[in-house]
This record gives sequence, C-alpha cells and structure tokens, in this order.
Amino acid sequence: MRTLKVAMIGGGFMGKAHSLAYAGMPMFFWPAPAIPVRQTVVDINDALAKEAADRYGFANYSSDWRRVIEDPEIDIIDIVTPNNTHAEIAIAAAQAGKHIISEKPLARTTEEAKQMLEAVNKAGVKHMVAFNYRRTPAVTLAKKYIEEGAIGNILNFRGTYLQDWSADPNSPLSWRFRKDIAGSGTLGDIATHVIDFARYLVGEITEVMGTSNTWIKERPVQSGGADKLGAVKAAGDVQKQTVDVDDEISTLVRFENGAVGSIEATRNAWGRNNFLTFEIHGDKGSLSFNYERRDELQVCFSNDPDDRRGFRTIYTGPAHPNGGALWPIPALGIGYGETKIIEAHDFIASIVDDTEVSPNFYDGYRISVISDAILESAASGKWVRTGV
Amino acid sequence: MRTLKVAMIGGGFMGKAHSLAYAGMPMFFWPAPAIPVRQTVVDINDALAKEAADRYGFANYSSDWRRVIEDPEIDIIDIVTPNNTHAEIAIAAAQAGKHIISEKPLARTTEEAKQMLEAVNKAGVKHMVAFNYRRTPAVTLAKKYIEEGAIGNILNFRGTYLQDWSADPNSPLSWRFRKDIAGSGTLGDIATHVIDFARYLVGEITEVMGTSNTWIKERPVQSGGADKLGAVKAAGDVQKQTVDVDDEISTLVRFENGAVGSIEATRNAWGRNNFLTFEIHGDKGSLSFNYERRDELQVCFSNDPDDRRGFRTIYTGPAHPNGGALWPIPALGIGYGETKIIEAHDFIASIVDDTEVSPNFYDGYRISVISDAILESAASGKWVRTGV
Amino acid sequence: MRTLKVAMIGGGFMGKAHSLAYAGMPMFFWPAPAIPVRQTVVDINDALAKEAADRYGFANYSSDWRRVIEDPEIDIIDIVTPNNTHAEIAIAAAQAGKHIISEKPLARTTEEAKQMLEAVNKAGVKHMVAFNYRRTPAVTLAKKYIEEGAIGNILNFRGTYLQDWSADPNSPLSWRFRKDIAGSGTLGDIATHVIDFARYLVGEITEVMGTSNTWIKERPVQSGGADKLGAVKAAGDVQKQTVDVDDEISTLVRFENGAVGSIEATRNAWGRNNFLTFEIHGDKGSLSFNYERRDELQVCFSNDPDDRRGFRTIYTGPAHPNGGALWPIPALGIGYGETKIIEAHDFIASIVDDTEVSPNFYDGYRISVISDAILESAASGKWVRTGV
Amino acid sequence: MRTLKVAMIGGGFMGKAHSLAYAGMPMFFWPAPAIPVRQTVVDINDALAKEAADRYGFANYSSDWRRVIEDPEIDIIDIVTPNNTHAEIAIAAAQAGKHIISEKPLARTTEEAKQMLEAVNKAGVKHMVAFNYRRTPAVTLAKKYIEEGAIGNILNFRGTYLQDWSADPNSPLSWRFRKDIAGSGTLGDIATHVIDFARYLVGEITEVMGTSNTWIKERPVQSGGADKLGAVKAAGDVQKQTVDVDDEISTLVRFENGAVGSIEATRNAWGRNNFLTFEIHGDKGSLSFNYERRDELQVCFSNDPDDRRGFRTIYTGPAHPNGGALWPIPALGIGYGETKIIEAHDFIASIVDDTEVSPNFYDGYRISVISDAILESAASGKWVRTGV
Repeated sequence: MRTLKVAMIGGGFMGKAHSLAYAGMPMFFWPAPAIPVRQTVVDINDALAKEAADRYGFANYSSDWRRVIEDPEIDIIDIVTPNNTHAEIAIAAAQAGKHIISEKPLARTTEEAKQMLEAVNKAGVKHMVAFNYRRTPAVTLAKKYIEEGAIGNILNFRGTYLQDWSADPNSPLSWRFRKDIAGSGTLGDIATHVIDFARYLVGEITEVMGTSNTWIKERPVQSGGADKLGAVKAAGDVQKQTVDVDDEISTLVRFENGAVGSIEATRNAWGRNNFLTFEIHGDKGSLSFNYERRDELQVCFSNDPDDRRGFRTIYTGPAHPNGGALWPIPALGIGYGETKIIEAHDFIASIVDDTEVSPNFYDGYRISVISDAILESAASGKWVRTGV
Repeated sequence: MRTLKVAMIGGGFMGKAHSLAYAGMPMFFWPAPAIPVRQTVVDINDALAKEAADRYGFANYSSDWRRVIEDPEIDIIDIVTPNNTHAEIAIAAAQAGKHIISEKPLARTTEEAKQMLEAVNKAGVKHMVAFNYRRTPAVTLAKKYIEEGAIGNILNFRGTYLQDWSADPNSPLSWRFRKDIAGSGTLGDIATHVIDFARYLVGEITEVMGTSNTWIKERPVQSGGADKLGAVKAAGDVQKQTVDVDDEISTLVRFENGAVGSIEATRNAWGRNNFLTFEIHGDKGSLSFNYERRDELQVCFSNDPDDRRGFRTIYTGPAHPNGGALWPIPALGIGYGETKIIEAHDFIASIVDDTEVSPNFYDGYRISVISDAILESAASGKWVRTGV
Repeated sequence: MRTLKVAMIGGGFMGKAHSLAYAGMPMFFWPAPAIPVRQTVVDINDALAKEAADRYGFANYSSDWRRVIEDPEIDIIDIVTPNNTHAEIAIAAAQAGKHIISEKPLARTTEEAKQMLEAVNKAGVKHMVAFNYRRTPAVTLAKKYIEEGAIGNILNFRGTYLQDWSADPNSPLSWRFRKDIAGSGTLGDIATHVIDFARYLVGEITEVMGTSNTWIKERPVQSGGADKLGAVKAAGDVQKQTVDVDDEISTLVRFENGAVGSIEATRNAWGRNNFLTFEIHGDKGSLSFNYERRDELQVCFSNDPDDRRGFRTIYTGPAHPNGGALWPIPALGIGYGETKIIEAHDFIASIVDDTEVSPNFYDGYRISVISDAILESAASGKWVRTGV
Repeated sequence: MRTLKVAMIGGGFMGKAHSLAYAGMPMFFWPAPAIPVRQTVVDINDALAKEAADRYGFANYSSDWRRVIEDPEIDIIDIVTPNNTHAEIAIAAAQAGKHIISEKPLARTTEEAKQMLEAVNKAGVKHMVAFNYRRTPAVTLAKKYIEEGAIGNILNFRGTYLQDWSADPNSPLSWRFRKDIAGSGTLGDIATHVIDFARYLVGEITEVMGTSNTWIKERPVQSGGADKLGAVKAAGDVQKQTVDVDDEISTLVRFENGAVGSIEATRNAWGRNNFLTFEIHGDKGSLSFNYERRDELQVCFSNDPDDRRGFRTIYTGPAHPNGGALWPIPALGIGYGETKIIEAHDFIASIVDDTEVSPNFYDGYRISVISDAILESAASGKWVRTGV
C-alpha cells in the first residue's frame, strides 16, 4: 500500500491533534488512499523534538526545519507552528516540491498569504489550510442539504464563535495576543473559522462592515513559552504588557449571491467555551449548528406539513457524509480528533487522486483578504469590498 | 377598593391579551393598586364592538372612539389598533386627560411619536408603550442581576427576533406589510422589542449601522380585514401587491456606556416561531435568554470556581422579581398572558402611585429614532448617530 | 348568550388559576359555548371569602359552602379545597344537581372516589377532575399524532414528575404532607398527573410494581394555614412533626394494549421545578415532552428518509389542536393559565352539548385505584393488578 | 521508555476504537506510564488479519489466537471479539500470564464471568472490562462531585440507554440478537453500561425488579458476517429467524446505601441514537448527564442562593479530571475515541503501577450477576437479591 511521509513542523497541542489524525486516518478510511507515515517531527531544540517524536510516534526528529524540508524522503510538510512562521516554512516547502498543510490562519497578513499562494501555485503542489471545523460531519451534512436545494436560496447567515478562555484579565499574554506573531487576535484565531463556514456554505463574501474591540488592554507576560491557552493564570504582582490585537470582532457581511449575514467572534464570552455556531435561513428551510453539540444538525424544511413542521435534530452517522468511515451509529461520539482525521484523509486523497482540496491556500488567502477588510471597515466605519 | 375604568380601542388579538390582563391583574397582584374595570370597548362598527364587549367582558361598547375618549368616566385609554391610528387616538386621549397605554411600535414615524410624547407631557398623564416582553420574569431577573453588578460591566449585547409566519410567499399582505399603515415591517413590528431589551438591559443606543431586506417582493392581497398573521394562506390565482416594508433588519449598535452589539430581526426564518433572544457578555459574567423557553434565564458568573463554572439555568419563580404575584413554583408556566398581566399592573400602579413607568412614550419615541437611524444607515451604508 | 353560574369552593392558588380560566375562556374560545359567570366564592370565613370575591371577581361570597350548593342560581360547583374535603362537597353538590369540577386528586382514598363517582352518576350531572396538564397544547398534539397512527403501536411509556420545592428539610409541613388531609404525598399530588398522561396517551394501566420513599422524615410545623408550597421556610428552633406520606414514587407499569412503562415522581429533585415529562416509543416513531418547555413537542417519525430522520421540535400554534382559540403564532407563550382556560372551556362545552368530558370522576376513580395499587406493591414487593 | 506489547483479538469496529486508543494514548497522556505497542492482531483468517494489521497499524498478524497468547513477547491481550469467545480467550490468556482487557459484557453468563474472574485472580494479572463510557470526562466529573459530597447523600438514580439502530424490523439478525453468541440482547449490550454507571456513581446494587420485552420477534438472517449494527437493512423476500434475546429492559433497583433507582434500556426508541443518560438526586444537589451531549455535565447545588439556583451546564476541560491530558479548552470536542484513550491509559497505568483498575473482571462479574437477577425478576415478577 502506498505511503506518504509526513514531516510535522511544531509540537504543541496542534501537533497532538495532527499526529492522532495521521495514526487514525487509515483506521477510519479503509482502504486508505495512502498510509501517512509519521516520519520526522521538528521542534525548537533537539530535546523538545525528541520528546515530540516519542510522544507523537514519529520515526525521526530534528530542530532544523530547513533541512527537513530538503529531505527527499518527505512528501508532506505539516505546519503547526505559530502564525509568524507559516509563510517562511510554506514557501520553502513549496520550493522543495512538498505538499503542504498549514494550520490556520494561513498567515499574519494578506501579503504573506498571497506569497504563499503564489509559491504553491508555482510549485504545483497540493495545499490545504486546516480549518478543520467545516469537516465536522454535521457541517458537511449542512453543505449537502444546501447543495440538494433542501433549504432553497439562502437569504441569511448568522455565525458566531464565542469563547471565554481569555476573558479573565489575568490570563497570560501568549503569542495569540501579539500582533507580531499572530497577525490579529480573535479575528485570525477564531473568526476565520466562521468566515470559512460562510464561504463554504453560502458563497463568496463581497463586502463587510465590522467593529473591533480590545476589552482587556494589558495582560500578564507569560512565563514559559508553551501555548497553554487560558489554563495558566498569573497571580500577584506580575509584569503586564499591552495587548495590540482584537478581543472581539462583529461584522455584517454581504455575499455574492445576494444573501446577507453577520459574524461575531469573541474570547470574552463567559460561559461559552467553543461556541462555534451558524444559523442559515433559506427560502425553503433553515439550518442551525452549534459545535458544542457537534453530533447534531438542526434542519427545518418548509415543505413539511403545517402541523409537523419544526427543526429536526439530526444526529450524524452512517447515513450521512463520511458515515461509513466514522462510527457505526450516530452519537457514538464525534470529537475534535475525528474532524482532524477527516481533514487528513481529504488532504491525502487529494494528493493521491491529484484533485483540488478545500479549503486550500486560495481559501486561506481570501479569508485573509476578508479579515483585512473587516479591520479596515472597523477603522473607517464604512463598508469595505473584498475585491471579488 | 379603588377602580380605574378602561376604554380599549380595538378588538383584535391584542384586545384579547389586554382584556385577559385586566381581568387577571388583581388575581395575581393582591392587594391590587386599583382594580381595572373593563368599561368600554371600541371597534370599527357596532356589531363588531358589541361582539368584542361580550367576548372580552366589557360593560359597554361603541364604534366612535372620539366620543369614548370624551367620556368623563373613563380613566385609561388602551390603544390596540393598527399603527396608523396610534398618534391620532393618543393625542386626543392626552388632550382629554386620560392615561394612555399604547401597543407598540408607538407610531409609524418619529414625527408622530414626537407629537404623542409632547401631548402626554403637556397633559401630565401617565403613558406606557406595550413592549410586554421585557416583563417576562426571566428578563426582569436579567435586569436585576445586571443592576446588582453580578455580570460586571457589559461588553456586548446580541439580540435576535426571528419568526417564520410570513416566510411563505403566499401568506397574505396584511396591514403589517403596508408602510402606510405599519410604518415599517419587521423593524417596527418585532425588531423594536429587541431594541427595547437593549435599552432596558444595557443602556441608550448612540449609533447604528444596519442592513434591510425585503425578501418577498409581493404578496397576495388579503381577503377580509382581520389580523390573522400567517394563519391564512392564499392559494391559486390570487391578486398580488407589492410589499413596501422590510422583511429583515440586521444592525450593529453602539451603546452610550461603551458596549457594542448586534440586533437581527426577520420574519423569514423557517422553524423559528417567536425566537426573541438576547445574549449579554459582561466582564464578570454572561446572560442568555430565549423567549421560546421563557421560564428560563441562563446566567454564568465568572467568580464561580473553575471546576464549577458554567451557565446556570434559572427557572423564574417565587425567589425572583414579581415572584410573589405569579405562580407558587417555578416552571408552573409563564405565558404571554402573564407578561401582559404584569404590564397592566405596572401601568396601573404608576397611575395610583403617581410614578413614572417604563417603557413610556419617551422610550417609544427613542425606539422610533433608533429605528429611523437603522433604515437611514441601511440606505446610506454609513453609521448613523441617534442624537443622544 | 347563555351563561353558567359558578360557585367556587376555596380561595388558594388554585382559586386564582380557576378564576383566570373563567374570565379568559370566552376571550379565547369564541363564540363560547356559554359564558361562565363568577357568581359566588366560598372560603373558611367571611373575611377571607370577601377578599377572594374582590380579588377573583366573584359577585358574591360566603363561608357556608352547604348553603351555596343549595343556591338554585348556581350551575357549577368548582372544588379547589384540600383533598380531605373533596368527597363531602362533591357528593352534596351532586345531590343538589350541580355540575362539578374538582381539583385533583379526586379524593384521599379509592373509597371516597368511588362514592363520588356513584353520586355524580346517580345525579346525572357533568363531572370533571382538573388534571389540567393534559390540556397543554403539546400534549393534546401528542394525542392527535397517536390517534393518527403517526408513531404506530406504542411499546413504551416513560413519565416523570420531578420537583424540588420540598427538597429542603426545613420547608414546612403543609397539608400536602399530612395523610389525613392529602391522602398521600407525591403520589396523589403529582404522580397522578403522570398516570393521567399515561392513561390518556397510551391506555388503561392493568398492573403496577412500585417503590415508595419518604426521604425527609419530619418537617417543621407550618405557621399559618396558607398553601405556600415551598416558599416559606422555617428557621431556628422550630417544632417538627413526622411526615406520614411519600416523598417519592417509582413504579413499573403494564398497559392493557401490551405496552410497558415506568412512572417516577419526586419532590426531592434539586434543580427540577415542574419537570413533568413523558417519552413514548412506538414502532413507527417516538414522542417526547417536558412541561418546563411546554410550547414544544418532540416527535420522530420512522418513515422519514434515513438521512433526514430525527426528533422534530414542534412549537404548538394555530396549526395544532385548539390553535384557533389560543395565540396567533407558536411560542407566543402557553402558560399555566392557558391550560386552565382550555380545561374550563371543555368542561363548559360538555355541559352545553351534553357530552362526556375527560378526565372525569371515572378517570379520577381509576387513578385512585392505580395509586392504591402502587402503594400496595411498594409494601408487598409484588406486582398488583388494578382490577381491569 | 517502557513499552507494553499488545495483541488484539478481533478486528471489527471495536478493534478500530482500541487501535486508535493505543496510538493516541501517549499523545494525550505524557509522559506515558508506558507506550503501548500494537504488536499482533488476530482475525478469523489470515487475509482478514493481514488487512487488520495494515489498517490498524499492527506489526504482525495471525489467525491463531492460541498461538498469539503463548507468544512470550506479548504483555497484554485485548479481547474485542463477540461475547461467546470472551471466556475461552481470557482464561487462556490469564493462564499464559497476560494482562487482559476485554470488551463488555464480560461474558454471556455469570458462570463464564465467574470462571474468568477466578482465572485472573489465580494468575495475578491485571484485568479490565471496557465499559468506556464511565471514562467520559463529564461522568468522571460527576464521580468527583459525589466524592466531594457536593450533592450530599444520594437518594435516587435514574439511568437510560436508548437506541434505535435495530428498531426497524428489517434490520438484520446479527450476532447481537443471538443468545448463543451474545448471552442476552439489549441487557448485555447496553443496559450493562448503565449498571456500570450506577455502581460507579452510587454503589452496589442489592436488589432488582425488572421487565423484559422482545418487540420484534423475528429478523432477517444477516448476509455476511460483519457487525454492521443497523446500517444494512434487508429488503424483499428474505429469510427470517426468531430473536431469542430481549429488545428492552426496564428495572427498579435498590442500592446498598439506601438509594433507589430505575434503569431502562431499549434499541427500539426511534430518534434516540446513543441516549445514555443518568440523573442523580442527592439531598444537597442533583446531577444530570446525556452522552449524546457528552461534553456537558449538569449539576445543581442546593446551597446556591434561592435566586441563583439552577442546573449549571459544566463543559469539561482543563479544570476537570484528566483535563491536562485532553484538549486545551472545554468543548473542543470529546468523542468516542477520547473515552477509549483514557481507558487504555488507566489500564496501562495499572499494570505499570501495579494497582487495581476499575471496572475490572470483578465488576464485570457483578454486572453479570445483576443482569441475571433482572432477567430472573422479569420472569418471576418478584424482587431478586443480587447476593451482596
């Protein structure tokens, strides 16, 4: 059976998720298009890299990502590092002829994203951005219903991504709060998932009108470099540093097909953990989804009889997209891992079959353009077109 | 025991709700500040008015509202007619020295609302606008938590009002779809309830930036004059007429206290019936409410221990605002009737105690100003200030 | 228009609910079969009775229920007193030729219930027991679906009624905790509503096997006679008295049609307020209901396509039973009041039309037989047949 | 780093789950107590076994489980075969000195279970039964709350496990419907998970009183041997065979500590997919859990202030049991895989640390005893003690 050798650059929590995906992919999708081999993992020093190899089941390790990219054995470069490194690694990997999957957001800036897109296009390699949430089976089912026309023409999209892990002003200023590393705050980190949903389910966004807020103006400097999200909180007399990215984004959007919508994302929503939702109204029905209850899709069909119409709670399973590959009954339990396993499958299948996969670097670039437009509109108070 | 004699102008579904409120108010609030007496009901002809009197338990009836307003026996004028008549009736009632409660929206236009406000101020009578939903016990409880500081400073308000009774293009063009009668569409009819929530719970709205859409461009002419909402649908080869009001409103808002927010309202949301919701994020907690499950308020307190923090589902009852007056245990069942009973009580108490009640004509006027600003921003594509 | 004059015996919280029902019934059901007139209210002394008349809108009052029953003007006797008085009043009312509606449970004992049933049968008057919850529109809709065969043959019924108002050992020993007055505890007070659901929706119960527990063995003696449920709690060094009724009932049941089921009721379920639920599995579908979210019925149809099958959340409204009489759109808000308004309507319609209404004294008697069988099985540890 | 070599006997869907667990365990729990090595997989013939090795990442394969058990390299035997083979394999594995994890139920009969327990006790090896659902983080959190006394003394346990994958009479008669292979039907397959919850969270069950039903008396013979659950349905004129196991179990239970409860399990609940729930009432609070929404635990604390008391929705995450090993924020997504990863960890840790793990073969034996008692009580109509 064909194998594809993966070098994973980065060993944080995303490394865990991606490693699980490579291990689990052929277990779920069988016969697999190809077996991904965890060949080499890279971290910032040899000790960390060795530990990552042991932990995540990689055959080799290295602290020199440039050398790994040059390794002729490697087929796929998987980028799970902070945002400020995506462009450099991806462009080098493309030049070395490797297929590339990058964590989201694709880059800190649209300029970086554009260069990355040009590099992969020039190299003719496969490329993907890891907006994994759209691969939640319930989201894929929503896409299927829409394509079948089951909810008719889409009028309205309402998406949110609400979290609270940084709502506490004492949660540390990790790299996710630094513009030089992350590019933006909530916008790039989580709002982009909603933008990905919107483009995937409704279509291209042509115009935006947003607001942006930084509710917590300064945060304690993080001790230690790890990406612990909100788990570690500072206490006592700690040094604080100014936050130069957004905590919250709220925007109106217009779609190419005439639909309208709104997108809101915040990390200051006490009680909301991973509240990634959408509600879509079509002229023949509605869809509603909340990732916190991700086994479920809510759908209402207008052509149900008047006395039997209402949202149906569909638990995804064998009767739905990718159902044969997943668990044998609905609600056995889709977790974060499964979304990453499907993502890994679809990327590898695109390499084997030489087809396009989505979301790819073009999508990542477009999401960057839209993100910039949101910030521009927030600054100017005016609608901003996204150049489509 | 003191009594206050009510003349109710209009006999549609709102007449039913108000009549039940007058009958039920002293049963719930006892001792009552005063007993409201259903004295006279007015409808467009004597036959309809007599039927309304029989049905709603009024002592007298009339088809001449002007004469009823002049009746020295009458203490309160209750306006439950379509929007185009509110101003004329209310101004005449004020000039006659009557206390006035008017259904919402207060008027078709800000100019009308302003005249009404001036009239009641000049007359020194009590005045109220029947935005009853804020009197849902769970909403009043949200207000109490906010006033106690339980969720801290408010950062964000997200409100929606989603319905589907006119999502079918064959649902008839009742007066609610005619600008000359209603003033606006979804905006005045239901978005105003969300605006009322926003002002009640967060504070004055200073600036808006909205969109407005009319999804169904024409509708069948309604046969019969009754306000049946979506219940009666046209079939076959019927005459259609252009809709000149909005089906949907979506707007970003800014509040005087620095909070931001969004408000969306539509009557084209298949599967949503009376989906009047808000979610509020403060720096110390969050609130979430959905009128479709109106016995419940969701609240999260940030100062709960890390391993015990989450939204609490509070069922309102004796331990909460107006609890002593309502049912003896939570979830026995708050319905539309109860919101109107509390409203009737608070209005009558304001008359007896000579205090201000809210929302009053000033609130109705402000909501009209904000509504106009939303339409203006939708037309201009620019943020519009609301003059505060 | 025909009127029917009501004498209501008792003025507690149930008196409030019934009074609202009489006032509101013609407002909702129009043309009304007859207008109920609140003629006379009876309480234990003249002062209380006068206050009840003022509060609940009755024309007269009395402290002598026997005289009121003899009053030839009175058509209907409405019994809203504690359980120990139901039999005596009802039998006297039947002998006086009055139609009778009694609060539930019908009586303290099966023997009392049997005598009451014989009395109304002999007198040929109409009779009803106020198990109002089955008149929640969503429950009536469940009945309709079942009658249409939409869920096929019923296999299983699971019903619960969970409350917490007496979970605190300091909540007072009101009459509801005294066997001499109430007959039983949770069983008669709330489990009987579930038994009523079971018989209404599935059919006659032939056999039971239950357990019974009294978790809180003694409670503070209540100061004051009012029925305050859990609202008033004792503090400090109070006198306590032994509880001689059940706090909790759990039982397996078998139905005449071959279905099986379980019924559980407790007042010691912290966090459950009025958690009256059922779930029914048929061979072609399922139903699920929770009164705490009473505007909704959940229904699943097996013949939906595999990829679109799931529970539908139906919000009851104009398209459903009694929809024309209630509010013009779903989720406008069904409360406790509406269930009582429908109950009043159906009772009065049965008088005017000379038809049987259900649940009547026969149903009340059967529920008493079943309740006794549950207690007997709890004592003996053996299945007990209910004599059908 | 220490490794433990696993031989997995069986390659169906459970093989997938266990293989993912071994691969993922050190990724989540790091440093791992030991790294599990997927050494050998066994299936019924070499071709299937080879395919399983390729798919699930095992180094070797075999069709001779007896030889594999004798392999001195192997540390752990993992039994994921149908129930009728558990005893023979486990006893042989114990005699060969291997640590054993077996899928549930432990055996077809109590006699088999007893022999297995004796074998592992005699051999002094570690043993576990794979009731994985209790390792859902929300269930572990429930256990923690109970142990902390946060809900006080437990009064009541109500557990259900409702599915619908075999509600269709055309779903095939797989081995799960054959007494000779499965031992029992719904009882052994899913009710045992609820019994495991009950014993884990509340304590030993001393007495049961149940009913048992087989709703679908015959089913189509399955073509092909695979365990496809309900996914494949027969059509047309197929051969049918009698079902000799239960479709549904409903039982009352009594616990050693005085609590009571009920357990219901069925595979005929249309619309319920994996509806594994419990609700527990203590004298100081309540817990509620539904695996279909497994990231959440509902908890109510009686000592919350009256106006702030209600069920809290806790999303499990870093602040809760195993939180450090799982995902960095709550609701990122616990799936079936994570429950198995935790299970694998705890089993391997028990080997390394030489401690007892639970549920082990003693628990499996007790659950078998209780299951037998349920069937006996269903047959006799009498309470049956479980010998504790």
